[in-house]
Amino acid sequence: MSTLPYRSALIVGAGPGISGSLTRRLRAENIPVVIAARNVGKLASLVDETGAIALPVDASDAGQMEALFAETEARIGAPEIVVYNASGRVRGPIAELDAEEVAKAVAVSALGAFHAVQQAARRMIPAGHGAILLTGATAGIKGYALSAPFAMGKFALRGLAQSAARELAPKGIHVAHFVIDGGVRAEHRADPPDAPDSTLDPDAIAQTYLDVLRQHRSAWTWEMELRPWVEKF
Amino acid sequence: MSTLPYRSALIVGAGPGISGSLTRRLRAENIPVVIAARNVGKLASLVDETGAIALPVDASDAGQMEALFAETEARIGAPEIVVYNASGRVRGPIAELDAEEVAKAVAVSALGAFHAVQQAARRMIPAGHGAILLTGATAGIKGYALSAPFAMGKFALRGLAQSAARELAPKGIHVAHFVIDGGVRAEHRADPPDAPDSTLDPDAIAQTYLDVLRQHRSAWTWEMELRPWVEKF
Amino acid sequence: MSTLPYRSALIVGAGPGISGSLTRRLRAENIPVVIAARNVGKLASLVDETGAIALPVDASDAGQMEALFAETEARIGAPEIVVYNASGRVRGPIAELDAEEVAKAVAVSALGAFHAVQQAARRMIPAGHGAILLTGATAGIKGYALSAPFAMGKFALRGLAQSAARELAPKGIHVAHFVIDGGVRAEHRADPPDAPDSTLDPDAIAQTYLDVLRQHRSAWTWEMELRPWVEKF
Amino acid sequence: MSTLPYRSALIVGAGPGISGSLTRRLRAENIPVVIAARNVGKLASLVDETGAIALPVDASDAGQMEALFAETEARIGAPEIVVYNASGRVRGPIAELDAEEVAKAVAVSALGAFHAVQQAARRMIPAGHGAILLTGATAGIKGYALSAPFAMGKFALRGLAQSAARELAPKGIHVAHFVIDGGVRAEHRADPPDAPDSTLDPDAIAQTYLDVLRQHRSAWTWEMELRPWVEKF
Repeated sequence: MSTLPYRSALIVGAGPGISGSLTRRLRAENIPVVIAARNVGKLASLVDETGAIALPVDASDAGQMEALFAETEARIGAPEIVVYNASGRVRGPIAELDAEEVAKAVAVSALGAFHAVQQAARRMIPAGHGAILLTGATAGIKGYALSAPFAMGKFALRGLAQSAARELAPKGIHVAHFVIDGGVRAEHRADPPDAPDSTLDPDAIAQTYLDVLRQHRSAWTWEMELRPWVEKF
Repeated sequence: MSTLPYRSALIVGAGPGISGSLTRRLRAENIPVVIAARNVGKLASLVDETGAIALPVDASDAGQMEALFAETEARIGAPEIVVYNASGRVRGPIAELDAEEVAKAVAVSALGAFHAVQQAARRMIPAGHGAILLTGATAGIKGYALSAPFAMGKFALRGLAQSAARELAPKGIHVAHFVIDGGVRAEHRADPPDAPDSTLDPDAIAQTYLDVLRQHRSAWTWEMELRPWVEKF
Repeated sequence: MSTLPYRSALIVGAGPGISGSLTRRLRAENIPVVIAARNVGKLASLVDETGAIALPVDASDAGQMEALFAETEARIGAPEIVVYNASGRVRGPIAELDAEEVAKAVAVSALGAFHAVQQAARRMIPAGHGAILLTGATAGIKGYALSAPFAMGKFALRGLAQSAARELAPKGIHVAHFVIDGGVRAEHRADPPDAPDSTLDPDAIAQTYLDVLRQHRSAWTWEMELRPWVEKF
Repeated sequence: MSTLPYRSALIVGAGPGISGSLTRRLRAENIPVVIAARNVGKLASLVDETGAIALPVDASDAGQMEALFAETEARIGAPEIVVYNASGRVRGPIAELDAEEVAKAVAVSALGAFHAVQQAARRMIPAGHGAILLTGATAGIKGYALSAPFAMGKFALRGLAQSAARELAPKGIHVAHFVIDGGVRAEHRADPPDAPDSTLDPDAIAQTYLDVLRQHRSAWTWEMELRPWVEKF
């Protein structure tokens, strides 16, 4: 039995970090999980370990996202938890960026999130129940030099999250936006011995996502930051 | 045994709502709790129920706050959790407000919090460990008409919280600022039947405070909002 | 002779309001002006009146924007002032929006602005001189319900503006973002007699744009709001 | 004849920088100016140069501020422009600050501003006309480590400014808050030759204050930042 008030989950933009930890935690609650990513090959060991279902998707493509939600619904029921973790990032001086790559980056960070929120809303509104968690970044609050496309995408995601929260919260749907401020720990990149916990442990992030999923509707969080204790901000 | 990484708590500005719920939750974790308020008479039943220690204090008075922390330390050890809930509020057109009452309101909301943070820091820095939770309000982010003194106090609290987080987090002290956006439920004021959970349940707020206290230092939250699902924002 | 430190201007997204007033003011300073819009037919009387040059463009198309800047350069020299006023807006419940229209709206509000900033940067960086003015909206700071696409576009524009300011200001290029908070007065829509000046007079907006263009580089504004005296915020 | 829609000015917290430049500019418009500071001795040369009237005041004292406004009214009429530039600043680790100095710093930055806004409102509301300019700092938006008292004061000032704008703008009173982000140039501190204009020229700041004073009420600015072109932010 799950301690969460939700019975199924779809995670879009599944990589080894946040999505992996979240999948493990949700599966430990016996919640069926679909994880969707462009390259599902990378998810094989996670699928083996957790029994999650991996499906391929280009989140920036509205049609593929529609199909993903339909397939998810067929496999585990309409997802009551939808998490959007995908983002697109190109860096460089504004004058030198490739316009097409910029458009693609914004599409992945923001339009893909819109598709996820839209598909989720269509299923959650009739049920009067559901949670949509959107993984943002400091770049959604502060536009750094040499990183305009990431700022555009993450600012847009935040605007979407706020608009969606205002529209959907009174319909019983919890929309939350997480500002991840720092690097997320990865297997291939340990913290330096003199700076322990200087990157975000994805298990710690997943723990907070679950805390938010358990919040009572009288006291929902729309936005929160997560950063390592030693991170400058 | 407590599931929290802290062994003692001091709550300043204890009223029946957030502070009461928090006291119950911390006591349920077997953590000794001191609750301090101007009028401790009101806390009698909470003390009876939970075994918390009530101490009187005018938080705007630096000397009284110093004495409160010393007495707390003598009774339950240096507080590893410090919560500041007090605030001062006077409303009215700017032209008609009483300047002395305005100063007093700001002193309770902001200077009292400074005293709490200072006393806490003096004890937590040597230990390299501790948590300081500051209860803010939407008025700390948005200055409403006819409520300048509350805006001044809660904005100042937020500035303090941010400055303190930047200084103290790298010393192992978790500083968190909660933006409470909505009315907090009270015994004498039930939600209307057609608007269930339209006020914040103090138990739900306390739950999130405990979630934050349990966060791993690699992924600490500095600020989050809490609002009822149906609250306009 | 102009009182402005710039000698040529390109305004993208030219409508009858802000762009019209700005064209008149810049032309009154004897600055050559190109105004670009999807439908140049609407600009005929402004062209007649001011001697500005109207060119057609779909700002969301990188190639057309590149051509527009090249043509502008050929006609009046590389633009030393670039103003981006275009935006895309579709409204409605998230569940009912058309994904393609959403993508188009974000492309006009944000990607078009990126194209403008990029083309401007390529010309202004070598000169170490120039000004880029981006017309935002309250929707870039607050995501309203039922208006997710506009929020996404205007948030993204703000992220772009901030990133561009951080990158380009130290290269001598003044990037400014204007948060227009309220309806802009139009010929067909007079203010109600009991609410004079309750919509933004485009001439008043243009005046502030010129004030910003004249700012000394030791005290540049990156962002400011403009709203009618009686506007709620 | 003045080009400004106001006929008298009171500047509180007058130092050699912003207040000096502003006094010169207002006097050049033939507007009578009272400058008030704790130490009026420092203002002697400015008084000689401009014909402004210097009056002593401790802005944190409500009674003195009431007397200042009365005296100003007697000398030049009720001030139609009120500028508040004073601030209090103590720096250091939170644990080491002197509580009394902190209270005093907040009183100067925030309570003094409240007194100014209140006295101004009492005179401007009946007239339905006036402007209140509040000089803030980046510290009012971002709370830096080791600078909690300045953050508290400047955050509180911003809260006051926003609340006052919401209350007073619809009564015809323009309230504006300026976020000064950087050091202000002083006679004894020239910019380094390789970093020209890396500090804010007080004349440039005063120019923008005058631009804001001239804004049409259909397009008022409540808040804007001013920073040197090369300032990191």
